Amino acid sequence: MVTVSDRREFRDLASPEKAHEVVAGLNIDPDPETVPLDNARDRVLAERVDADIDVPGFDRASMDGYAVHARDTFGADEADPVALSVVGEVHAGEEPDVTVESGSVAEISTGAVMPPGADAVVMVERTTETDDGVEVRTSVAPGDNVMLAGADIAAGARALGPGTRVTPREIGLLSALGVDEVPVRGRPQVGILSTGDELVRPGNPLDSAAGEIYDVNSYTLAGAVAEAGGDPVMYPHAGDDYAEMERLLHEAADECDLVLSSGSTSASAVDVIYRVIEERGELRLHGVAVKPGKPMLVGTIGDSAYVGLPGYPVSALTIFQTFVAPAVRDAAGRDPPQTATVSGTIAVQERYGEGRRRLMPAGLVEDESGSLLVYPVDKGSGATTSLVDADGFVDVPPGTDYLAEGEMVDVTLFSPAVRPPVSYTHL
Amino acid sequence: MVTVSDRREFRDLASPEKAHEVVAGLNIDPDPETVPLDNARDRVLAERVDADIDVPGFDRASMDGYAVHARDTFGADEADPVALSVVGEVHAGEEPDVTVESGSVAEISTGAVMPPGADAVVMVERTTETDDGVEVRTSVAPGDNVMLAGADIAAGARALGPGTRVTPREIGLLSALGVDEVPVRGRPQVGILSTGDELVRPGNPLDSAAGEIYDVNSYTLAGAVAEAGGDPVMYPHAGDDYAEMERLLHEAADECDLVLSSGSTSASAVDVIYRVIEERGELRLHGVAVKPGKPMLVGTIGDSAYVGLPGYPVSALTIFQTFVAPAVRDAAGRDPPQTATVSGTIAVQERYGEGRRRLMPAGLVEDESGSLLVYPVDKGSGATTSLVDADGFVDVPPGTDYLAEGEMVDVTLFSPAVRPPVSYTHL
Repeated sequence: MVTVSDRREFRDLASPEKAHEVVAGLNIDPDPETVPLDNARDRVLAERVDADIDVPGFDRASMDGYAVHARDTFGADEADPVALSVVGEVHAGEEPDVTVESGSVAEISTGAVMPPGADAVVMVERTTETDDGVEVRTSVAPGDNVMLAGADIAAGARALGPGTRVTPREIGLLSALGVDEVPVRGRPQVGILSTGDELVRPGNPLDSAAGEIYDVNSYTLAGAVAEAGGDPVMYPHAGDDYAEMERLLHEAADECDLVLSSGSTSASAVDVIYRVIEERGELRLHGVAVKPGKPMLVGTIGDSAYVGLPGYPVSALTIFQTFVAPAVRDAAGRDPPQTATVSGTIAVQERYGEGRRRLMPAGLVEDESGSLLVYPVDKGSGATTSLVDADGFVDVPPGTDYLAEGEMVDVTLFSPAVRPPVSYTHL
Repeated sequence: MVTVSDRREFRDLASPEKAHEVVAGLNIDPDPETVPLDNARDRVLAERVDADIDVPGFDRASMDGYAVHARDTFGADEADPVALSVVGEVHAGEEPDVTVESGSVAEISTGAVMPPGADAVVMVERTTETDDGVEVRTSVAPGDNVMLAGADIAAGARALGPGTRVTPREIGLLSALGVDEVPVRGRPQVGILSTGDELVRPGNPLDSAAGEIYDVNSYTLAGAVAEAGGDPVMYPHAGDDYAEMERLLHEAADECDLVLSSGSTSASAVDVIYRVIEERGELRLHGVAVKPGKPMLVGTIGDSAYVGLPGYPVSALTIFQTFVAPAVRDAAGRDPPQTATVSGTIAVQERYGEGRRRLMPAGLVEDESGSLLVYPVDKGSGATTSLVDADGFVDVPPGTDYLAEGEMVDVTLFSPAVRPPVSYTHL
């Protein structure tokens, strides 16, 4: 009955460094794609974007006022204005229908095309309308209050580099260039398979007498995949139908860049996975020497990568965030989140019975002074509530007998969106 | 021609504090809604979620091994094992079909339902199979290696509080409870109107001779609205058809919680907005005493709020992020982003000709030591490239004559996803 776990006891476990290397060696890069501008936010440019057009595309008035021959204004000031005739007006979005000869001006709005002849704009505040024209009370130089065609962005110039994350300001620049279809890195398709005879998808009725429990890992991993920039694809739960499970594994491998499953208590389910990997791919790693990484599997199925995660929810999320999320982010072209790690001090001493390296679940509490206190959380890794009491995990080196109260540690958060509660009366 | 800007010169501008207060006083709260669990990531719980069920829903073996009467093992150890008969087996996801009488055991898998009679599990590693049963080489106490029904989460307990941001771990807890429809705060619907005769939506051909330019603000603001947790709704561009523009304003106000437009160079467009606000709502603020907030309008149209933003892209985004984004986040129930502000030192002295408070666009560069250098960016606020050279803005107090090289300032980023370039040879 327990041959699989027996077998595991005698294997050599890979070091965490080796596990990172093996996962990084998987090819889960998706093809680039093109998305409409209004769907481009938070995506990553697949290639550089050059300006096809000058911005602005014409010499443009940057003030309300009068388009003039600058020469006509030389020497003018408040005490000694120059009188000029008004030959017409130009509004934004109109083609000028006047030519400004020396001695004349045209009224002009901010953003309007400079009429032929004119080479500067006098702002309206420095002018006075008269019965037969306008008095200009200042002198301007050629180019004053005019933005020349291409002065903002010149056609042919590089506008944005590949790998740029698209935030609202990049959307602004793409808009200015008229780009409404944006070439972006694809999001790796990550298939999520649920194994375990006893699992039922949320929303369906549960038969507790038959030992059924809700499937926690499928939606949790889907959320973590999306957070890392991947596109999660959930497959139906095969239950104890192992032929169906094998079919779904093949289907997921054909459709996705990466297939994830999380550990099953059923030896038969694990055997199906082994067989499919052996038949269509390669097993590259089996077990990582960090608690809870012992059940981790890494391999390939056809052209897809495969990673098997531990079954307990806290363990599955911890191992996903540690070993798999970096590869998903890389494939999506995304940087590691800036808020993924915080520092704090251990609030209560934690002793260890064995010296293995471990990723210890920990809850955070902010004290009155704003410092973070770190509480080890160990309700048994099967406890779902640990997912809520724990905000992340601490990497505890091998050979550690205890973490002392007051010791400073780094906590990797389960999500960059996790915030420690400001006051916590108990854990 | 310039009566509108003349009028503005003589108005009293509101203080930024007053502007925050007026915007905060708008009602843009959306109704709560229910979303499927796989769409709940990054949403905010509208109400507390209580556990409807015990988790686990049954007494559950937490080890592979044998379900026993603990009493039968008392005194057993490696030297003196106790022999017991095996009456059956129980796998995860099955209803037990055996009863464990004293003197007998049942094989049991991790996650399986404890069979009637048994009160503890002996892990398989401490047992030896024999021809007619099993030898147990350790003693266990009642409850050992068993997770009792409700031990993780008890039915009726509060599982998650209102206002909780849904990250993968909350998805895990909701899954465990079988919750597949999640009550979340609504996202405020924010209508975006584009005004300006000269504007053309990206993707359409541009007539530069007629002074047309691409509409930068609509998609940029839509991106910033989405980033703040709102749901942007873009309305068609009315161009110089003011009757259509008025119709769209009414439609947007009827459909949305908040309507945004960004400044137009056209006095007629501004007049349409004034008239609609006067007829159906109330103008609450006109102009903020911080550069570039002078054109800002705040009011209501029917049951909707309305905010008018400056027309230049950098100005529109700066004023949106400063005054409007906080209200959108509040309505969506979201915390301010943790990465929205950074500190750095002014890289080159910047002088000011006038003493107005200003939100100065600034670019960031990380030097070799990892410190941030802050470069004032001023290409003229009409320049779209400023949106890319500037990473955010510095709030420069009124009466400031210059920012000295080496002076420490805070920079509010245009987006929490903005990252300063690590090396920058020029700006």
